Amino acid sequence: MLAAIKAAEKGISNASGGPFGACLTQNGKVISIGYNTVLKDQNPTSHAEINAIKEACKKLKKWDLSGCEIYSTTEPCPMCFSAISWARIKKITYGTSISDVKKLGFNELLISNDTMNKLGKAKIKITKGYMLKECQSLLSQWKKTSNKKTY
Amino acid sequence: MLAAIKAAEKGISNASGGPFGACLTQNGKVISIGYNTVLKDQNPTSHAEINAIKEACKKLKKWDLSGCEIYSTTEPCPMCFSAISWARIKKITYGTSISDVKKLGFNELLISNDTMNKLGKAKIKITKGYMLKECQSLLSQWKKTSNKKTY
Repeated sequence: MLAAIKAAEKGISNASGGPFGACLTQNGKVISIGYNTVLKDQNPTSHAEINAIKEACKKLKKWDLSGCEIYSTTEPCPMCFSAISWARIKKITYGTSISDVKKLGFNELLISNDTMNKLGKAKIKITKGYMLKECQSLLSQWKKTSNKKTY
Repeated sequence: MLAAIKAAEKGISNASGGPFGACLTQNGKVISIGYNTVLKDQNPTSHAEINAIKEACKKLKKWDLSGCEIYSTTEPCPMCFSAISWARIKKITYGTSISDVKKLGFNELLISNDTMNKLGKAKIKITKGYMLKECQSLLSQWKKTSNKKTY
């Protein structure tokens, strides 16, 4: 999660998108790290999780990331949750929640990972509120920046 | 939808991924066309809709595709539905449904666009079963191919 937090901080400092970071691991080893680059790339799918998944697939030369797990500073949005499911990742650990971020002004679909998991019968193990204070601090840092933009 | 169907046929013939195509339009004019390239790219997010959205963003040089609408040969999966919402696309027209494709063996999250729309309060206009026979025919064509793979 520390790597995800550092990635999010990088994203905040260069105003690449929202204040979000993600990290993929396999057997406790970091495989890939991503942060949100929606504004930098002008690509609405460039979320931290999607960026991390794409990098991991390139590195491992396969779309199937079974055996990997993902750490996200904020609960993955439904797009990212579904991408995680498509990639066969079976464990998500996150800090702040989608509703925390909705309050900042992002155009979130308010569908929790628990709801996605249940309705989609995805059987992904979800751990919430991990390193919560540190992840909340990212949102506060972002709020204080002058060049922030929601989308 | 014809452009989306042609794209899906291209994807079937080169076994790039699932038998799915998408097309983005603005004021009735085609902006971008995509087909599923999950296997070709070894990227689980390379769905037809995501590919079409990315191409449109590149072409229009912006992440915000307000005013565009999307045609998909099959109901967008929850990842693609959410990407469509992030891109501010307000109209989806599709042929076959997620459950039709689940039967083929794809690892779908069985959450319909109606459910995503309702739970996420997305207010996207959804038209189903458009050019249904032609879209069903894509799934039949794919079933007959010898080098098909589900994921």
